Amino acid sequence: MNGAQSVVQTLVNCGVEVCFANPGTSEMHFVAALDAVGGMRPVLCLFEGVATGAADGYGRIAGKPAATLLHLGPGLANGLANLHNARRASSPIVNVVGDHATYHLQYDALLTSDIAGFARPVSSWIHQSTSAGSVGSDAARAVQAARSAPGGIATLIMSADVAWNEAAFAAHKLDDIGPARVAADSIESVAALLGNGKKSALLIRGEGLRGTGLEAAGRIQAKTGARLLCDTFAPHGEFGAGRVPVERIPYFAEQIVMFLKDVEQLILVGAKPPVSFFAYPGKPSWGAAEGCVFSYLAQPHEDGARALQDLADALDAPAAPATRTPLVLPELPKGKLNSLGVAQVIAHYTPDNAIYADESATSGLALMIHLARARPYTHLPLAGGSIGQGLPLAVGAALAAPDRKVVCPSGDGGAAYTLQALWTMARENLDVTVVIFANRSYAILNIELQRVGVGTAGTKALSMLDLHNPEISWVQVASGLGVEASRATTAEEFAAQYADAMAQRGPRLIEAMI
Amino acid sequence: MNGAQSVVQTLVNCGVEVCFANPGTSEMHFVAALDAVGGMRPVLCLFEGVATGAADGYGRIAGKPAATLLHLGPGLANGLANLHNARRASSPIVNVVGDHATYHLQYDALLTSDIAGFARPVSSWIHQSTSAGSVGSDAARAVQAARSAPGGIATLIMSADVAWNEAAFAAHKLDDIGPARVAADSIESVAALLGNGKKSALLIRGEGLRGTGLEAAGRIQAKTGARLLCDTFAPHGEFGAGRVPVERIPYFAEQIVMFLKDVEQLILVGAKPPVSFFAYPGKPSWGAAEGCVFSYLAQPHEDGARALQDLADALDAPAAPATRTPLVLPELPKGKLNSLGVAQVIAHYTPDNAIYADESATSGLALMIHLARARPYTHLPLAGGSIGQGLPLAVGAALAAPDRKVVCPSGDGGAAYTLQALWTMARENLDVTVVIFANRSYAILNIELQRVGVGTAGTKALSMLDLHNPEISWVQVASGLGVEASRATTAEEFAAQYADAMAQRGPRLIEAMI
Repeated sequence: MNGAQSVVQTLVNCGVEVCFANPGTSEMHFVAALDAVGGMRPVLCLFEGVATGAADGYGRIAGKPAATLLHLGPGLANGLANLHNARRASSPIVNVVGDHATYHLQYDALLTSDIAGFARPVSSWIHQSTSAGSVGSDAARAVQAARSAPGGIATLIMSADVAWNEAAFAAHKLDDIGPARVAADSIESVAALLGNGKKSALLIRGEGLRGTGLEAAGRIQAKTGARLLCDTFAPHGEFGAGRVPVERIPYFAEQIVMFLKDVEQLILVGAKPPVSFFAYPGKPSWGAAEGCVFSYLAQPHEDGARALQDLADALDAPAAPATRTPLVLPELPKGKLNSLGVAQVIAHYTPDNAIYADESATSGLALMIHLARARPYTHLPLAGGSIGQGLPLAVGAALAAPDRKVVCPSGDGGAAYTLQALWTMARENLDVTVVIFANRSYAILNIELQRVGVGTAGTKALSMLDLHNPEISWVQVASGLGVEASRATTAEEFAAQYADAMAQRGPRLIEAMI
Repeated sequence: MNGAQSVVQTLVNCGVEVCFANPGTSEMHFVAALDAVGGMRPVLCLFEGVATGAADGYGRIAGKPAATLLHLGPGLANGLANLHNARRASSPIVNVVGDHATYHLQYDALLTSDIAGFARPVSSWIHQSTSAGSVGSDAARAVQAARSAPGGIATLIMSADVAWNEAAFAAHKLDDIGPARVAADSIESVAALLGNGKKSALLIRGEGLRGTGLEAAGRIQAKTGARLLCDTFAPHGEFGAGRVPVERIPYFAEQIVMFLKDVEQLILVGAKPPVSFFAYPGKPSWGAAEGCVFSYLAQPHEDGARALQDLADALDAPAAPATRTPLVLPELPKGKLNSLGVAQVIAHYTPDNAIYADESATSGLALMIHLARARPYTHLPLAGGSIGQGLPLAVGAALAAPDRKVVCPSGDGGAAYTLQALWTMARENLDVTVVIFANRSYAILNIELQRVGVGTAGTKALSMLDLHNPEISWVQVASGLGVEASRATTAEEFAAQYADAMAQRGPRLIEAMI
């Protein structure tokens, strides 16, 4: 057994089953170990940002880490933007980054770089293994770090000679760290707060937005009348018909202020105080009203779902939520296609229990409204604001849940960043339907240009927001990357194509001309 | 004048004329300033790795920095891999990275990250501007840092409020730092070495590989018989007919050892001692023979071209080189297309003074052989080993030299990393001919898998090196991104299509089925 085999076997021992890979020479022993050791599914990505974004999507749905396999510092660097998103989503990921042989580093060969330096801004755990004898143990610690509540990014740097030298053993899984249960007196104090007559809201993130956590939140609402809120980009949430309804905080600063103006106390459940996405001249960064009191029911590393149950019990709340979202499917649109029509069709046809890997940006406003009362679904948005995540996220979600339909609504600007994900969808025959909102624009920037106080924009400025010259044919791009694709120019065409995609399995792209 | 206008005006004052941009909300004032201030050409890129790779290509050809405009930490992160390459090429680049307003950072909004941390591994200069009053001066210092010999990457982080607040002035250009002239006694000591009867070679990098530097190297060779060498991936070199011939160090470790085995003393001109690209078990990392003596004629920050002239004069060398490369154009191939045939066609048809943005990898071996005696050309290879640079490099080179044909020979694996560059080629109507070597493989890794000592590779391992499933249609991908494209399956088809491309202006892609 060599060091690479020790690492792969350890990862498998620790429950890591999938590796999103873009390897190079220094990772060849790891690649070879995939055959020597059973139990790991390698998924080739043509660009590292696809690998890291896919690992994020996998982690959010599977609730456990996938590995990535990246080629030295520059390979990691290409994956950093989606690792930034994953960090904000608290997704568990184990990055395995190859490096030059330990004795080769002194020569500063061209690919030498400060790998740990690249990793630091996104990683909760970093280690450079220098011995094949201990690299298995290092890998087990990496998985433990990634699985530590609420989930983190562990980066294991493995030198080439560590991979090829003789190793003695593979390590076993270490105990998970957390999530910690919230102490009873904390529960009691929040229960007391909710009885003080003030207008209250719970801002929930993480496990509290799904399953038993969400049910408990509904019970608390039934007892106390508190509003249930989630962040604009809550990384994972379960919504739609039959679920306890949760209000999503809006995007823009002044909307947040309006939305929260009556909240006198805000109970944070795995969340932080709401702030605006960007600063704007003369507009507030802080979302809550002056005097609003913040309290924590659970910190991100604590068990928010259990805390909600304990709180519901402490409040002697009813056994079930009083309110559940009704199923209201929109009528099918006719005529000219726009983002509203796309939303209506998606909400109308998407089957139960679909996963949305959502990077629809400005075009997604109508989608959120119509999905709110559509069939139950899981929502995975752009968690860290770095665009180019939607398509990779869909790859990972589809691998984690092969029996569920994955829908990826994406702006055309955002989709261009990591379009190589389409190739992996085709290669792995993933059940993903990509909908491109083809407005030929960085539409959000046309809004933001005014909001940040730029007066009249000139031709150069406007050209920086415009994607008409040339117009991307997403049908050609997707076809070229192996994904069946079609273009819809009317509502009827889009409805027919989308219904067809929902009835099929396998990857599909629809370019919606809005 | 606001801070953003101060920065743009300062950049223009300092000779920066082009900005490769992928802006977001925090950069909207910079974008607006492009109209308020004249003299800066913005070039929109759909992915930041295109912007930074293009800035590298521009810098290598123009000999001065372009700016990039990047969106906070994740935008910079997407550009890091090609900044790694640019760092290895000593290319001058000024990155302008937007950040949240200074007062907004405390809220840790989703896009907040350690921007300076991301920048550190690739930057020779980093500064976070905190005042509109001084940001113009900061920009001037950034340009000075980028222009400091031998060229560096300067990263200026500009907070949104610094961009929109009132500024008093734009700054003027600061004096360039270097390159320093090598002292006469250093020249004399190298001259003495070259007279000691040992087998000598000059390893030249930077300005010594072009123009007057290369001519002087030829004079030195004429006088002393010393071999003239360049690195495998010398970032910029002038080769082909009429030029002083330079031997390129081969790629693989054992080839390097063979190539250098008779060299008793190696004179470094802006170069470092040759080492292998990767380490391999049982193979040397160090390229030179045991006992080979190294001496420096010029360090990278010194004026290597002038040092070569001074050395030639000190040696009383003849006024002109004794050897010049003859023009030998290959015959056109027939029948089945392979990488040799592609090389023959390219060497046969490419006009004088073309620029090669070269990421041809394994398929480029034959190309290097045939180009050696083809019409004179400039060669820009993958300087730092991070693949995904060729297409962006071509964008930048074409903008820097609009009157020269740019040829971009690229492996299909490498081209997939930053294929969004095709869109910018179409948008700017750049005179670039992309040739994709479509072997449907990470071919280098099939070689490396054996060389690193992996025994029999299994099916999972081999699948990680194989790009057949699905086969990318580069014709569809390029067409979808606005570039005229065709596929060649025989030598005759390729010759006809390439000849046509050479006779045209504007972007063109040929998928060579090898």
